[in-house]
Amino acid sequence: MARKKTASKSKRPASGKSSGRPKGRKNQASAKITGFAESVVKSASQRRDPAIVIPMRTLSNANYNKKRRIIEMGRKTATRNFFDLGKAKSFMQSVLIASGCKKLIDENKTVSIRGLYYLSKHTIPGTSEKTFNDQNESDPIIEDLEVSLGSLREELHVFADNRGSIAGNLTVVSLGDEINLRKMGASGFAIPSIVEPDVFQFRKCEAKFILHVEKGTIWSRFNEDKFWKKHNCILIHGGGQPPRGVRRLLFRMHDELKLPLYCLLDNDPWGYYIYSVIKQGSINLAFESQRMAVPDARFIGVRSRDFEEFDLSDDVKIAVDDKDIKRAKQILNYPWFKGKKDWEKEVNHMLEHGFKMEVESLLTKSISFVTETYVPQKLKRRNQWLD
Amino acid sequence: MARKKTASKSKRPASGKSSGRPKGRKNQASAKITGFAESVVKSASQRRDPAIVIPMRTLSNANYNKKRRIIEMGRKTATRNFFDLGKAKSFMQSVLIASGCKKLIDENKTVSIRGLYYLSKHTIPGTSEKTFNDQNESDPIIEDLEVSLGSLREELHVFADNRGSIAGNLTVVSLGDEINLRKMGASGFAIPSIVEPDVFQFRKCEAKFILHVEKGTIWSRFNEDKFWKKHNCILIHGGGQPPRGVRRLLFRMHDELKLPLYCLLDNDPWGYYIYSVIKQGSINLAFESQRMAVPDARFIGVRSRDFEEFDLSDDVKIAVDDKDIKRAKQILNYPWFKGKKDWEKEVNHMLEHGFKMEVESLLTKSISFVTETYVPQKLKRRNQWLD
Repeated sequence: MARKKTASKSKRPASGKSSGRPKGRKNQASAKITGFAESVVKSASQRRDPAIVIPMRTLSNANYNKKRRIIEMGRKTATRNFFDLGKAKSFMQSVLIASGCKKLIDENKTVSIRGLYYLSKHTIPGTSEKTFNDQNESDPIIEDLEVSLGSLREELHVFADNRGSIAGNLTVVSLGDEINLRKMGASGFAIPSIVEPDVFQFRKCEAKFILHVEKGTIWSRFNEDKFWKKHNCILIHGGGQPPRGVRRLLFRMHDELKLPLYCLLDNDPWGYYIYSVIKQGSINLAFESQRMAVPDARFIGVRSRDFEEFDLSDDVKIAVDDKDIKRAKQILNYPWFKGKKDWEKEVNHMLEHGFKMEVESLLTKSISFVTETYVPQKLKRRNQWLD
Repeated sequence: MARKKTASKSKRPASGKSSGRPKGRKNQASAKITGFAESVVKSASQRRDPAIVIPMRTLSNANYNKKRRIIEMGRKTATRNFFDLGKAKSFMQSVLIASGCKKLIDENKTVSIRGLYYLSKHTIPGTSEKTFNDQNESDPIIEDLEVSLGSLREELHVFADNRGSIAGNLTVVSLGDEINLRKMGASGFAIPSIVEPDVFQFRKCEAKFILHVEKGTIWSRFNEDKFWKKHNCILIHGGGQPPRGVRRLLFRMHDELKLPLYCLLDNDPWGYYIYSVIKQGSINLAFESQRMAVPDARFIGVRSRDFEEFDLSDDVKIAVDDKDIKRAKQILNYPWFKGKKDWEKEVNHMLEHGFKMEVESLLTKSISFVTETYVPQKLKRRNQWLD
């Protein structure tokens, strides 16, 4: 693949519109790999040095796009040449990983990132040299390939371990099975790692919004109290920091089903950061933002003011430590938080309080306070939502 | 509650038969809590010292029952008296946790162990003393109560975060929702933390056996290749060391649906230990064994001999380190492994090899080798299964 072309491609994977167009997406990733392979062959046959150009995944190459309100990858790239002693191995590894993904796409199968490591590992004939010594070598190469080709990992048929559950007034189709998320019992449907349109589709949906909660334990409280039924919504959690599958699903539900997304997270730097990743993407995976970030998401709680407003007892307090303070200030300095007066107030209120609060601490009021009183009130008071 | 009675009760929770008898189980836990409370009141009104007797959860009080082939709790108990300065606080905490569980049972709600911590936390009037300072104080009290009352945590309406997925030729009912495990798409039904018969029932089942695999990534391989459909079975994983919900479900499917259980785990001390816990229970939670352990489970792989037998390449090798060697020897010394010639051979073979192998390493053969060749062969060769 020609250098310039790759670099510019990688900034705008697909068509810029990232939503549910199953048609041809899979072939696109496959075609891109073939294109890369052909460029290597062509360079070699023309006695030029085959190379792969990879956009840099560093903080300095992650920009906040104020207009689109997402974190985007910049234009800085690194080139990996075959005839460079220091880079020949990683070049070879990139080709191997690409070849493994091509095989997966062709056979219509998926594997984990560890699986792809094993699939791509072998001993180079005539030597005792391994193509990969451990998974720490193959994982970054997978990310390289994603950004270089402008294809999501999921489109390359590679997944990470899944986390998170969903239930609510929605029917989905996963691998051809129609799944009624209104009938999911105590624990919901386990959210797949790969929810790309070719393998995961939406059907009937009555829900009017999405409620994202931080953890499975809180999700269970809402599910047991039939919150999603009473409030006609979709209830989802991502087991802490939501994995890519959950983020992609949030994006697709928001984008294709036109559902607003409300987040109920802990009032601590970890909760703020989860919100920030859902909303505008992460620095590490800036190239994914446009297909995962939901800039219109809203933070409905837990807010520092809730302590006074809901007359909570001291039992909810968890003292902030130095790490929390450092992290909170760091977060306020992110370009996407900077200048947001409401967020500054919020974080400073937490620091002045000197304590943080978990969603679960609302149990100190009563078992179902969070589902019957707290969130219903929060949903009404739009002026208290944080952007 | 009288001391002797409690101690003996705790050794044989329920009727000895632990399987699917929904009727009255819930009331049983509630009645036991009431009985405990009444014994406290009675002691107090008779001017005696209220006390709670708790079977000890230590290695020295965990015995391997050779006949039943499970780990059981012994007869050693500790007494927690109210009029003992060193124990008054934990006595009070036991009463509070019991009261919280009673409330949950009465309201027919469940909470996480963290939720129960918040539910039971308050400031003692007239002091600045908290009933619980953090969750490290409430978690062991919950376990105390389980063994003392002879009620599983799940029967006390308390759960841990859930892990693990299931799919296969089986219909289940969870919280009243009928769920067809044959139509679960890419990721399966998330296994609830609580699968007691009053909230989780079995319906139609055509499956002939259960295949338990270690991790979600391997589960996905089997699910994608429709293994459970082709081999008419139930496919389940517990996300590594299976949590209580998964173990209880394995037990109930084996016990009530009469399905044999086959385990496909990594060939390393961690895999051996997972097998050991599924099969005869764990030391920490010896009191649960009789309702969770499946002594008839079989280990079908990965076995050390597979390296030669399936002509695997060096790429599957992961060198054993000192920790692995130590752990392997420790495991061989457990009474439930001791004297099992096959297991001794297996573990020693691994140590002689000097390497361990993961299930995922079978990908070095081909993407679907594990589902199309390896496991089908393993299932036929009964004489190679480990007991």
